[in-house]
Amino acid sequence: MKYPGGVVKLKNNNIIYGNRGMNLEADLNSTCSYYLETNKAVIYKKPTPITINKVDYVSRVDAVIKEAHFNTPSTTDYNGIYKGKYIDFEAKETKLNSFPIRNIHLHQIKHLQKIVMHGGIGFLIIRFTLLNETYYLKAEDLFEFIESEKRVSIPISYFREKAFLIKDKYNPRCDFLKIIDYLYFGGKYEWKT
Amino acid sequence: MKYPGGVVKLKNNNIIYGNRGMNLEADLNSTCSYYLETNKAVIYKKPTPITINKVDYVSRVDAVIKEAHFNTPSTTDYNGIYKGKYIDFEAKETKLNSFPIRNIHLHQIKHLQKIVMHGGIGFLIIRFTLLNETYYLKAEDLFEFIESEKRVSIPISYFREKAFLIKDKYNPRCDFLKIIDYLYFGGKYEWKT
Repeated sequence: MKYPGGVVKLKNNNIIYGNRGMNLEADLNSTCSYYLETNKAVIYKKPTPITINKVDYVSRVDAVIKEAHFNTPSTTDYNGIYKGKYIDFEAKETKLNSFPIRNIHLHQIKHLQKIVMHGGIGFLIIRFTLLNETYYLKAEDLFEFIESEKRVSIPISYFREKAFLIKDKYNPRCDFLKIIDYLYFGGKYEWKT
Repeated sequence: MKYPGGVVKLKNNNIIYGNRGMNLEADLNSTCSYYLETNKAVIYKKPTPITINKVDYVSRVDAVIKEAHFNTPSTTDYNGIYKGKYIDFEAKETKLNSFPIRNIHLHQIKHLQKIVMHGGIGFLIIRFTLLNETYYLKAEDLFEFIESEKRVSIPISYFREKAFLIKDKYNPRCDFLKIIDYLYFGGKYEWKT
């Protein structure tokens, strides 16, 4: 909308401060679609786990769920396959300058431990929205932090030292396979801080 | 309920004819739980994909979904990891003596093709409920049937010849990892027909 004096008023969700406020889930979903379309990997976000209590069968093909509840997830949000390897990760955003470990359910940590034990690639993708930094944290480093530290939050300094920065790109938005290439397939790491 | 003359009337769903009427999904869920508890594999059924339209936030932690719709699944129902390999499959029951290919969505067939292309292990588990026979059909054999045959159903004879019978067991109920051991890890196949 144009105001007198040429001032352009944007709606709140249209204000652009670099990447601030961009949604990590949307970025990851578009990234996974890109990987799928370009035949790089097959990785999906799992549907939200729910318990259905009541369904209306409007017709044979058109059923409407009338009552359902959200379940606590027992696994992570994303899994799939890349270069023959099983991939499994959880993604979280935080506005803080540290990542509260309680944002990951205990079930999910145990799940990642099993994945790593069975030879899969497990990790977290954590976005610090106000700092505009997104990191790939190996599940093994998460376990080590939990075991060796008493802190309930992982400070940004730990991410900057131990984790791998994922630079924003236009397409794919959040190119985490670059990090997997570096860690497991002899690829180069271009985004050193 | 006891009737005169000692006749015991069972409810319909309690009648036991061998395995007839046992639910494949229940068997597979208990099998995957067994694999998880015994640390053999990490395989889960994915939640039903839905689109949520309306949620009532009764309190901060207790939200109730008041309207949602079922989506067409774009992937298969089960995936996970076994001995470092990515596992992906769809399970179906039929009362017929042949398996109608339309019971598997085209999306799911394309998904299995991608999985195999990326080095994963893809397959179907098909139970013929009235014959009380459950088979492991390699995704590659499914693709071959679809390409080379004009038939819209895969006859039981094809399963008996090409697929691998999974014998019922007490625990785990539907031990499909035995077939994967045979096909990919040099295990023995004990259930030859």
